[in-house]
Amino acid sequence: MSGAEQVGDQSRTSPTNPRYDVHRREKIVVAALDVIGDVGVSGASMRKVADHAGVPLGSLTYYFGSRDELLRAAFEEHAETVAAKFESRMSHASCPASAQEEIVALIMEDMFANQRELVLNQELYTLAARIPAFREITDAWMARSRAALSQQFDPDTARGLDALIEGLTLHGALGTHQLDQRFVAAMVGRICPV
Amino acid sequence: MSGAEQVGDQSRTSPTNPRYDVHRREKIVVAALDVIGDVGVSGASMRKVADHAGVPLGSLTYYFGSRDELLRAAFEEHAETVAAKFESRMSHASCPASAQEEIVALIMEDMFANQRELVLNQELYTLAARIPAFREITDAWMARSRAALSQQFDPDTARGLDALIEGLTLHGALGTHQLDQRFVAAMVGRICPV
Repeated sequence: MSGAEQVGDQSRTSPTNPRYDVHRREKIVVAALDVIGDVGVSGASMRKVADHAGVPLGSLTYYFGSRDELLRAAFEEHAETVAAKFESRMSHASCPASAQEEIVALIMEDMFANQRELVLNQELYTLAARIPAFREITDAWMARSRAALSQQFDPDTARGLDALIEGLTLHGALGTHQLDQRFVAAMVGRICPV
Repeated sequence: MSGAEQVGDQSRTSPTNPRYDVHRREKIVVAALDVIGDVGVSGASMRKVADHAGVPLGSLTYYFGSRDELLRAAFEEHAETVAAKFESRMSHASCPASAQEEIVALIMEDMFANQRELVLNQELYTLAARIPAFREITDAWMARSRAALSQQFDPDTARGLDALIEGLTLHGALGTHQLDQRFVAAMVGRICPV
Protein backbone atom coordinates (compact mmCIF):
# COMPACT_ATOMS: atom_id res chain seq x y z
CA MET A 1 0.00 0.00 0.00
CA SER A 2 1.47 3.40 -0.95
CA GLY A 3 1.71 6.29 1.46
CA ALA A 4 -0.99 8.22 -0.40
CA GLU A 5 -3.41 5.30 -0.16
CA GLN A 6 -2.69 4.90 3.52
CA VAL A 7 -3.50 8.55 4.20
CA GLY A 8 -6.69 8.28 2.15
CA ASP A 9 -7.67 5.11 3.97
CA GLN A 10 -7.01 6.57 7.41
CA SER A 11 -9.04 9.68 6.59
CA ARG A 12 -11.95 7.61 5.28
CA THR A 13 -12.11 5.44 8.36
CA SER A 14 -10.90 7.95 10.93
CA PRO A 15 -12.94 8.32 14.13
CA THR A 16 -13.15 12.05 13.31
CA ASN A 17 -15.23 11.18 10.24
CA PRO A 18 -18.91 11.39 11.35
CA ARG A 19 -19.75 8.26 9.30
CA TYR A 20 -17.12 6.18 11.13
CA ASP A 21 -18.47 3.59 13.60
CA VAL A 22 -15.77 1.56 15.32
CA HIS A 23 -18.30 -1.01 16.54
CA ARG A 24 -19.67 -1.60 13.05
CA ARG A 25 -16.15 -2.08 11.68
CA GLU A 26 -15.36 -4.56 14.45
CA LYS A 27 -18.65 -6.41 13.83
CA ILE A 28 -17.69 -6.81 10.14
CA VAL A 29 -14.23 -8.12 11.04
CA VAL A 30 -15.68 -10.72 13.44
CA ALA A 31 -18.24 -11.73 10.81
CA ALA A 32 -15.43 -12.14 8.26
CA LEU A 33 -13.57 -14.48 10.63
CA ASP A 34 -16.78 -16.47 11.24
CA VAL A 35 -17.36 -16.85 7.49
CA ILE A 36 -13.70 -17.80 6.83
CA GLY A 37 -13.96 -20.36 9.65
CA ASP A 38 -17.12 -21.81 8.10
CA VAL A 39 -16.36 -21.85 4.38
CA GLY A 40 -12.69 -20.89 4.05
CA VAL A 41 -11.00 -17.88 2.45
CA SER A 42 -12.09 -19.01 -1.02
CA GLY A 43 -15.79 -18.92 -0.09
CA ALA A 44 -15.67 -15.70 1.94
CA SER A 45 -17.22 -13.19 -0.47
CA MET A 46 -17.90 -9.57 0.50
CA ARG A 47 -21.64 -10.27 0.19
CA LYS A 48 -21.51 -13.33 2.44
CA VAL A 49 -19.62 -11.38 5.12
CA ALA A 50 -22.05 -8.43 4.88
CA ASP A 51 -25.02 -10.83 5.25
CA HIS A 52 -23.42 -12.56 8.24
CA ALA A 53 -22.65 -9.20 9.89
CA GLY A 54 -26.19 -8.00 9.18
CA VAL A 55 -24.98 -4.84 7.44
CA PRO A 56 -25.64 -3.59 3.89
CA LEU A 57 -22.93 -4.40 1.34
CA GLY A 58 -22.41 -0.65 0.88
CA SER A 59 -21.55 -0.29 4.55
CA LEU A 60 -18.99 -3.09 4.32
CA THR A 61 -17.33 -1.50 1.27
CA TYR A 62 -17.21 1.84 3.17
CA TYR A 63 -14.89 0.25 5.73
CA PHE A 64 -13.11 -2.21 3.42
CA GLY A 65 -12.47 -1.06 -0.14
CA SER A 66 -11.53 -4.54 -1.37
CA ARG A 67 -11.78 -8.20 -0.39
CA ASP A 68 -8.00 -8.24 0.22
CA GLU A 69 -8.36 -5.32 2.64
CA LEU A 70 -11.11 -7.20 4.52
CA LEU A 71 -9.07 -10.44 4.63
CA ARG A 72 -6.09 -8.49 5.91
CA ALA A 73 -8.13 -6.85 8.70
CA ALA A 74 -9.70 -10.21 9.63
CA PHE A 75 -6.40 -12.05 9.89
CA GLU A 76 -4.77 -9.14 11.74
CA GLU A 77 -7.59 -9.50 14.27
CA HIS A 78 -7.00 -13.26 14.52
CA ALA A 79 -3.25 -12.71 15.02
CA GLU A 80 -4.01 -10.05 17.64
CA THR A 81 -6.22 -12.49 19.61
CA VAL A 82 -3.60 -15.25 19.71
CA ALA A 83 -0.63 -12.88 20.21
CA ALA A 84 -2.37 -11.21 23.16
CA LYS A 85 -2.72 -14.58 24.92
CA PHE A 86 0.95 -15.26 24.20
CA GLU A 87 2.05 -11.88 25.61
CA SER A 88 -0.16 -12.31 28.67
CA ARG A 89 1.53 -15.63 29.45
CA MET A 90 5.00 -14.16 29.02
CA SER A 91 4.18 -11.11 31.16
CA HIS A 92 3.73 -13.50 34.12
CA ALA A 93 7.31 -14.78 33.80
CA SER A 94 9.83 -13.18 36.14
CA CYS A 95 12.84 -15.32 35.12
CA PRO A 96 13.83 -17.79 32.38
CA ALA A 97 12.71 -20.76 34.52
CA SER A 98 9.20 -19.39 35.06
CA ALA A 99 9.12 -18.34 31.38
CA GLN A 100 9.69 -21.99 30.45
CA GLU A 101 6.72 -23.00 32.60
CA GLU A 102 4.55 -20.36 30.90
CA ILE A 103 5.62 -21.62 27.47
CA VAL A 104 4.65 -25.19 28.39
CA ALA A 105 1.24 -23.96 29.65
CA LEU A 106 0.81 -21.95 26.44
CA ILE A 107 1.52 -25.02 24.27
CA MET A 108 -0.68 -27.34 26.35
CA GLU A 109 -3.60 -24.96 27.00
CA ASP A 110 -3.69 -21.77 24.93
CA MET A 111 -2.72 -22.56 21.36
CA PHE A 112 -5.57 -23.69 19.14
CA ALA A 113 -7.75 -23.74 22.24
CA ASN A 114 -10.68 -24.32 19.92
CA GLN A 115 -11.43 -25.62 16.45
CA ARG A 116 -12.14 -22.09 15.14
CA GLU A 117 -8.66 -20.80 16.01
CA LEU A 118 -6.95 -23.86 14.54
CA VAL A 119 -8.87 -23.53 11.27
CA LEU A 120 -8.34 -19.74 11.05
CA ASN A 121 -4.62 -20.26 11.60
CA GLN A 122 -4.37 -22.76 8.76
CA GLU A 123 -6.46 -20.53 6.49
CA LEU A 124 -4.07 -17.63 7.15
CA TYR A 125 -1.00 -19.81 6.54
CA THR A 126 -2.46 -21.11 3.27
CA LEU A 127 -3.20 -17.56 2.14
CA ALA A 128 0.34 -16.46 3.07
CA ALA A 129 1.76 -19.49 1.23
CA ARG A 130 -0.16 -18.50 -1.91
CA ILE A 131 0.14 -14.70 -1.76
CA PRO A 132 3.45 -13.33 -0.37
CA ALA A 133 1.82 -9.97 0.57
CA PHE A 134 -0.01 -11.77 3.39
CA ARG A 135 3.36 -12.82 4.84
CA GLU A 136 3.48 -9.29 6.28
CA ILE A 137 0.84 -10.48 8.75
CA THR A 138 2.56 -13.76 9.63
CA ASP A 139 5.93 -11.97 9.84
CA ALA A 140 4.63 -9.21 12.15
CA TRP A 141 2.99 -11.88 14.31
CA MET A 142 6.27 -13.85 14.60
CA ALA A 143 8.14 -10.63 15.46
CA ARG A 144 5.65 -9.98 18.24
CA SER A 145 5.97 -13.50 19.70
CA ARG A 146 9.76 -13.25 19.58
CA ALA A 147 9.70 -9.84 21.27
CA ALA A 148 7.64 -11.34 24.10
CA LEU A 149 10.07 -14.26 24.41
CA SER A 150 13.05 -11.88 24.26
CA GLN A 151 12.06 -10.45 27.62
CA GLN A 152 13.60 -13.59 29.15
CA PHE A 153 15.76 -15.12 26.40
CA ASP A 154 18.49 -14.11 23.93
CA PRO A 155 17.37 -13.54 20.28
CA ASP A 156 18.41 -17.00 18.94
CA THR A 157 16.70 -18.80 21.83
CA ALA A 158 13.57 -16.67 21.38
CA ARG A 159 13.47 -17.52 17.66
CA GLY A 160 14.13 -21.22 18.31
CA LEU A 161 11.41 -21.36 20.98
CA ASP A 162 8.98 -19.65 18.60
CA ALA A 163 9.63 -22.34 15.97
CA LEU A 164 9.40 -25.17 18.53
CA ILE A 165 6.09 -23.82 19.88
CA GLU A 166 4.75 -23.70 16.30
CA GLY A 167 5.87 -27.24 15.48
CA LEU A 168 4.68 -28.80 18.74
CA THR A 169 1.23 -27.16 18.67
CA LEU A 170 0.75 -27.97 14.99
CA HIS A 171 1.80 -31.59 15.43
CA GLY A 172 -0.43 -31.84 18.51
CA ALA A 173 -3.41 -30.42 16.61
CA LEU A 174 -2.95 -32.39 13.38
CA GLY A 175 -1.87 -35.66 14.98
CA THR A 176 -4.22 -38.19 16.51
CA HIS A 177 -2.55 -38.27 19.95
CA GLN A 178 -2.56 -35.62 22.69
CA LEU A 179 0.72 -33.88 23.49
CA ASP A 180 2.47 -35.15 26.61
CA GLN A 181 3.32 -32.36 29.08
CA ARG A 182 6.51 -34.03 30.33
CA PHE A 183 7.80 -34.31 26.75
CA VAL A 184 6.86 -30.69 25.92
CA ALA A 185 8.63 -29.40 29.04
CA ALA A 186 11.73 -31.44 28.18
CA MET A 187 11.95 -30.05 24.62
CA VAL A 188 11.39 -26.43 25.74
CA GLY A 189 14.14 -27.01 28.30
CA ARG A 190 16.55 -28.29 25.64
CA ILE A 191 16.14 -25.14 23.48
CA CYS A 192 16.81 -22.89 26.49
CA PRO A 193 20.51 -22.47 27.35
CA VAL A 194 21.41 -23.54 30.87
CA MET B 1 -13.85 -46.59 5.86
CA SER B 2 -15.30 -49.96 6.92
CA GLY B 3 -13.58 -53.25 6.25
CA ALA B 4 -16.22 -54.21 3.69
CA GLU B 5 -15.69 -50.96 1.76
CA GLN B 6 -11.95 -51.49 1.80
CA VAL B 7 -12.28 -54.97 0.36
CA GLY B 8 -14.66 -53.69 -2.31
CA ASP B 9 -12.31 -50.82 -3.10
CA GLN B 10 -9.27 -53.04 -3.37
CA SER B 11 -11.08 -55.46 -5.64
CA ARG B 12 -12.34 -52.64 -7.89
CA THR B 13 -8.92 -51.11 -8.37
CA SER B 14 -6.85 -54.27 -8.13
CA PRO B 15 -4.16 -54.79 -10.78
CA THR B 16 -5.82 -58.19 -11.44
CA ASN B 17 -8.90 -56.34 -12.72
CA PRO B 18 -8.47 -56.00 -16.50
CA ARG B 19 -9.86 -52.43 -16.41
CA TYR B 20 -7.21 -51.29 -13.92
CA ASP B 21 -4.49 -49.00 -15.34
CA VAL B 22 -1.91 -47.92 -12.78
CA HIS B 23 -0.62 -45.14 -15.05
CA ARG B 24 -4.06 -43.64 -15.52
CA ARG B 25 -4.66 -43.69 -11.76
CA GLU B 26 -1.31 -41.97 -11.17
CA LYS B 27 -2.08 -39.39 -13.87
CA ILE B 28 -5.35 -38.54 -12.10
CA VAL B 29 -3.60 -38.18 -8.72
CA VAL B 30 -0.98 -35.82 -10.18
CA ALA B 31 -3.73 -33.81 -11.91
CA ALA B 32 -5.60 -33.56 -8.58
CA LEU B 33 -2.48 -32.13 -6.89
CA ASP B 34 -2.03 -29.64 -9.76
CA VAL B 35 -5.64 -28.48 -9.45
CA ILE B 36 -5.43 -28.25 -5.63
CA GLY B 37 -2.21 -26.24 -6.03
CA ASP B 38 -3.94 -23.89 -8.48
CA VAL B 39 -7.38 -23.35 -6.94
CA GLY B 40 -7.25 -25.00 -3.50
CA VAL B 41 -9.15 -27.98 -2.08
CA SER B 42 -12.42 -26.04 -2.19
CA GLY B 43 -12.20 -25.50 -5.95
CA ALA B 44 -10.93 -28.98 -6.83
CA SER B 45 -14.07 -30.61 -8.24
CA MET B 46 -14.05 -34.12 -9.74
CA ARG B 47 -14.86 -32.59 -13.14
CA LYS B 48 -12.00 -30.08 -12.98
CA VAL B 49 -9.52 -32.83 -12.07
CA ALA B 50 -10.83 -35.10 -14.88
CA ASP B 51 -10.48 -32.22 -17.38
CA HIS B 52 -6.95 -31.45 -16.20
CA ALA B 53 -5.96 -35.13 -16.39
CA GLY B 54 -7.54 -35.41 -19.85
CA VAL B 55 -9.67 -38.38 -18.85
CA PRO B 56 -13.46 -38.80 -18.96
CA LEU B 57 -15.25 -38.14 -15.65
CA GLY B 58 -16.44 -41.77 -15.71
CA SER B 59 -12.84 -42.95 -15.73
CA LEU B 60 -12.01 -40.77 -12.73
CA THR B 61 -14.98 -42.10 -10.76
CA TYR B 62 -13.89 -45.67 -11.62
CA TYR B 63 -10.66 -45.11 -9.68
CA PHE B 64 -12.02 -42.72 -7.05
CA GLY B 65 -15.55 -43.32 -5.86
CA SER B 66 -15.81 -39.97 -4.10
CA ARG B 67 -14.10 -36.59 -3.91
CA ASP B 68 -12.86 -37.48 -0.41
CA GLU B 69 -11.24 -40.63 -1.79
CA LEU B 70 -9.52 -38.56 -4.50
CA LEU B 71 -8.33 -35.92 -2.00
CA ARG B 72 -7.00 -38.65 0.25
CA ALA B 73 -5.04 -40.28 -2.60
CA ALA B 74 -3.69 -36.91 -3.73
CA PHE B 75 -2.46 -35.89 -0.29
CA GLU B 76 -1.04 -39.37 0.37
CA GLU B 77 0.97 -38.89 -2.83
CA HIS B 78 2.13 -35.44 -1.65
CA ALA B 79 3.16 -36.85 1.76
CA GLU B 80 4.96 -39.72 -0.01
CA THR B 81 7.00 -37.26 -2.12
CA VAL B 82 8.14 -35.18 0.85
CA ALA B 83 8.63 -38.17 3.19
CA ALA B 84 10.79 -39.94 0.57
CA LYS B 85 13.15 -36.92 0.45
CA PHE B 86 13.26 -36.95 4.26
CA GLU B 87 14.06 -40.68 4.41
CA SER B 88 16.70 -40.34 1.71
CA ARG B 89 18.48 -37.65 3.75
CA MET B 90 18.35 -39.74 6.91
CA SER B 91 19.61 -42.86 5.12
CA HIS B 92 22.89 -41.00 4.48
CA ALA B 93 23.48 -40.48 8.20
CA SER B 94 25.82 -42.97 9.84
CA CYS B 95 25.84 -41.41 13.33
CA PRO B 96 23.91 -38.75 15.31
CA ALA B 97 26.43 -36.03 14.29
CA SER B 98 26.04 -36.69 10.57
CA ALA B 99 22.26 -37.03 11.09
CA GLN B 100 22.26 -33.48 12.49
CA GLU B 101 24.01 -32.26 9.34
CA GLU B 102 21.44 -34.02 7.15
CA ILE B 103 18.59 -32.43 9.15
CA VAL B 104 20.08 -28.96 8.64
CA ALA B 105 20.42 -29.62 4.88
CA LEU B 106 16.85 -30.89 4.81
CA ILE B 107 15.54 -27.72 6.50
CA MET B 108 17.66 -25.39 4.35
CA GLU B 109 17.24 -27.14 0.99
CA ASP B 110 14.54 -29.83 0.78
CA MET B 111 11.47 -28.65 2.64
CA PHE B 112 9.09 -26.54 0.57
CA ALA B 113 11.69 -26.59 -2.20
CA ASN B 114 9.06 -24.98 -4.40
CA GLN B 115 5.88 -22.96 -4.13
CA ARG B 116 3.74 -25.95 -5.16
CA GLU B 117 4.93 -28.09 -2.22
CA LEU B 118 4.46 -25.25 0.26
CA VAL B 119 0.91 -24.58 -0.93
CA LEU B 120 -0.02 -28.30 -1.03
CA ASN B 121 1.28 -28.70 2.50
CA GLN B 122 -0.87 -25.85 3.78
CA GLU B 123 -3.90 -27.13 1.87
CA LEU B 124 -3.47 -30.55 3.52
CA TYR B 125 -3.06 -29.02 6.99
CA THR B 126 -6.16 -26.87 6.52
CA LEU B 127 -8.15 -29.92 5.43
CA ALA B 128 -6.87 -31.89 8.44
CA ALA B 129 -7.74 -28.97 10.72
CA ARG B 130 -11.30 -28.95 9.38
CA ILE B 131 -11.93 -32.70 8.98
CA PRO B 132 -10.32 -34.96 11.61
CA ALA B 133 -10.44 -38.00 9.26
CA PHE B 134 -7.66 -36.38 7.20
CA ARG B 135 -5.43 -36.36 10.30
CA GLU B 136 -4.82 -40.03 9.50
CA ILE B 137 -2.64 -38.77 6.63
CA THR B 138 -0.76 -36.15 8.68
CA ASP B 139 -0.37 -38.62 11.54
CA ALA B 140 1.01 -41.41 9.32
CA TRP B 141 3.40 -38.88 7.76
CA MET B 142 4.69 -37.75 11.19
CA ALA B 143 5.11 -41.39 12.24
CA ARG B 144 7.22 -41.98 9.12
CA SER B 145 9.44 -38.93 9.74
CA ARG B 146 9.94 -39.95 13.35
CA ALA B 147 10.79 -43.52 12.34
CA ALA B 148 13.48 -42.13 10.00
CA LEU B 149 14.83 -39.90 12.79
CA SER B 150 14.71 -42.82 15.27
CA GLN B 151 17.46 -44.58 13.33
CA GLN B 152 19.87 -42.16 15.03
CA PHE B 153 17.94 -40.68 17.97
CA ASP B 154 15.83 -41.80 20.94
CA PRO B 155 12.01 -41.45 20.55
CA ASP B 156 11.66 -38.11 22.45
CA THR B 157 14.52 -36.53 20.51
CA ALA B 158 13.07 -37.81 17.22
CA ARG B 159 9.67 -36.32 18.08
CA GLY B 160 11.21 -33.03 19.21
CA LEU B 161 13.33 -32.77 16.06
CA ASP B 162 10.25 -33.48 13.92
CA ALA B 163 8.42 -30.56 15.61
CA LEU B 164 11.45 -28.24 15.33
CA ILE B 165 11.87 -29.07 11.62
CA GLU B 166 8.17 -28.26 11.08
CA GLY B 167 8.35 -24.96 12.96
CA LEU B 168 11.61 -23.77 11.39
CA THR B 169 10.59 -24.58 7.81
CA LEU B 170 7.14 -23.07 8.29
CA HIS B 171 8.53 -19.88 9.83
CA GLY B 172 11.15 -19.71 7.08
CA ALA B 173 8.50 -20.07 4.37
CA LEU B 174 5.90 -17.73 5.87
CA GLY B 175 8.34 -15.09 7.13
CA THR B 176 9.93 -12.42 5.00
CA HIS B 177 13.54 -13.33 5.88
CA GLN B 178 15.59 -16.36 4.80
CA LEU B 179 16.57 -18.89 7.45
CA ASP B 180 20.15 -18.59 8.70
CA GLN B 181 22.05 -21.89 8.49
CA ARG B 182 24.18 -21.23 11.58
CA PHE B 183 21.04 -20.59 13.64
CA VAL B 184 19.28 -23.71 12.28
CA ALA B 185 22.32 -25.88 13.08
CA ALA B 186 22.49 -24.45 16.61
CA MET B 187 18.81 -25.20 17.32
CA VAL B 188 19.00 -28.75 15.91
CA GLY B 189 22.07 -29.24 18.11
CA ARG B 190 20.21 -28.06 21.19
CA ILE B 191 17.39 -30.61 20.72
CA CYS B 192 19.90 -33.45 20.32
CA PRO B 193 21.28 -34.80 23.62
CA VAL B 194 25.06 -34.63 23.95
